[in-house]
Amino acid sequence: MTLRILSTGGTFDKHYNELNGVLGFSDSHLPVAVARARITVPVALEQLPLLDSLDMVDADRQRILASCGAAAERAVVIIHGTDTMPETAAVLGAAKLDKTLVLTGAMIPYEIANSDALFNLGFACGVAQTLAPGVYVAMNGQIFAWDNVQKNRAAGVFQPL
Amino acid sequence: MTLRILSTGGTFDKHYNELNGVLGFSDSHLPVAVARARITVPVALEQLPLLDSLDMVDADRQRILASCGAAAERAVVIIHGTDTMPETAAVLGAAKLDKTLVLTGAMIPYEIANSDALFNLGFACGVAQTLAPGVYVAMNGQIFAWDNVQKNRAAGVFQPL
Amino acid sequence: MTLRILSTGGTFDKHYNELNGVLGFSDSHLPVAVARARITVPVALEQLPLLDSLDMVDADRQRILASCGAAAERAVVIIHGTDTMPETAAVLGAAKLDKTLVLTGAMIPYEIANSDALFNLGFACGVAQTLAPGVYVAMNGQIFAWDNVQKNRAAGVFQPL
Amino acid sequence: MTLRILSTGGTFDKHYNELNGVLGFSDSHLPVAVARARITVPVALEQLPLLDSLDMVDADRQRILASCGAAAERAVVIIHGTDTMPETAAVLGAAKLDKTLVLTGAMIPYEIANSDALFNLGFACGVAQTLAPGVYVAMNGQIFAWDNVQKNRAAGVFQPL
Repeated sequence: MTLRILSTGGTFDKHYNELNGVLGFSDSHLPVAVARARITVPVALEQLPLLDSLDMVDADRQRILASCGAAAERAVVIIHGTDTMPETAAVLGAAKLDKTLVLTGAMIPYEIANSDALFNLGFACGVAQTLAPGVYVAMNGQIFAWDNVQKNRAAGVFQPL
Repeated sequence: MTLRILSTGGTFDKHYNELNGVLGFSDSHLPVAVARARITVPVALEQLPLLDSLDMVDADRQRILASCGAAAERAVVIIHGTDTMPETAAVLGAAKLDKTLVLTGAMIPYEIANSDALFNLGFACGVAQTLAPGVYVAMNGQIFAWDNVQKNRAAGVFQPL
Repeated sequence: MTLRILSTGGTFDKHYNELNGVLGFSDSHLPVAVARARITVPVALEQLPLLDSLDMVDADRQRILASCGAAAERAVVIIHGTDTMPETAAVLGAAKLDKTLVLTGAMIPYEIANSDALFNLGFACGVAQTLAPGVYVAMNGQIFAWDNVQKNRAAGVFQPL
Repeated sequence: MTLRILSTGGTFDKHYNELNGVLGFSDSHLPVAVARARITVPVALEQLPLLDSLDMVDADRQRILASCGAAAERAVVIIHGTDTMPETAAVLGAAKLDKTLVLTGAMIPYEIANSDALFNLGFACGVAQTLAPGVYVAMNGQIFAWDNVQKNRAAGVFQPL
């Protein structure tokens, strides 16, 4: 395998439940998105528990780290909620794995009109195959080092510290 | 500006004309796609004549080369038809510009269900910002050097020579 | 005008707010949906306050009734939340206007993948132009008299009493 | 069964073939569209050979007539190409079956952005369940008698003679 994609939840994977009208989690959209992308390099999908990143605790971040550590691939894309993406990036960055780990997500869920999810997935897949080992946040066409990124919640964008 | 995106036509930008039922060209989808991607780095869009790449002649490739040469940006993504993408890549590669030029496109038009266009756009935007100067084809999650790529038309995929 | 379409909110018109991740209301999707439908009969759009139908009080239903009464058109389609659609239908039914009033809505918002909104809009526009004056609920391919309809919330479907 | 839906091809069901770039026919979109519509009345789908209606000959229209005649349902929606929809309507109209037969289609294929297909399907399902036996064309929110309809190809709309 060349590339591993971990799904951990977040806006990217939110799903509308028509019975109660709530946006939550069901099956990950990753298998559909990856098929749609017609990716021609070997790619492994791994689904961790899907969580709103505001609900993540340290054990959840350790589980993501463990999956990155166990991955046979040098390049790992991590689909993650935007609200605490920098916190998870910091946990991964401190671990200094000899791999290229790229966190991405979406401002609009994959299944909602005008979503940036598929663009961000493509962007992260490009960055993960080209950058030196390290931990990066790759969102909306911009690449950030794991220790120099924050989400500006009022503006809905990622920016340097 | 950090990134330039050139639209030159191809499947990515095909548009269904409801009056005659033909897939042709109208306005490029790039402005809509880039807005949807919420790109937070400075990006310049440039639209060249939109062509089916089977209809491109050498003058069309020279025009693309001229735009790349004139670009103020170091990173240029070129949206191009798939059928002769390697031929245009060869023209650009031979010119040895000191820029990172990344050709991409789509197997399914942006406006048709299950399109890979937005993924490929994101992928190319990632690759263009990270690779050393040179000319690359970036399609469906795989990166090719300009002088080692071909389209396998029967399978509908790009592959090395 | 031949047809009037009233938007009053409900699931049909829910919009994802990317800054806070909440499904709420912004502009109605009706103008976009009607343009997409390429409706060739004269049609008037009227937007009332967009509400989750669980939040509607009697004054809201009276406002809908007043709009129906004031309409110059004989056929009126009312886009409404599903949870209290029968209650509003009862208010309209009791008023015995000499018009064909058809309530519809959606189980999945217009802007979310796999939405039934556009189908239901078309269905209601057909029913409103063909049935005798009266009040009807038209959802998911089935027509109900205003006094013989209920939402089965567990199953997510409308059915007779 | 309450409703039968016949697919016969036309723009509604056109599919983009990514290997040759041609819009043609593959599987009908009807099963997906009907599932999406969450139709709660009994509905039977029947797929006839999918044809561009410009390619239909009299035998094709006779096959459609035969299916309408054999249908157990009183209400039949026929998904048909727009270019010769009035010709098929005339064949069905002359047969004077004691059923409500409603022809519809789309100006934009179901799988292409901004398609009117799902609206028209809903519209036709409403009309088919409410009108007296006869043959109708129901397109883009307007209902036509079979013997008073033509397609204005320059404008891309249906209109009376």
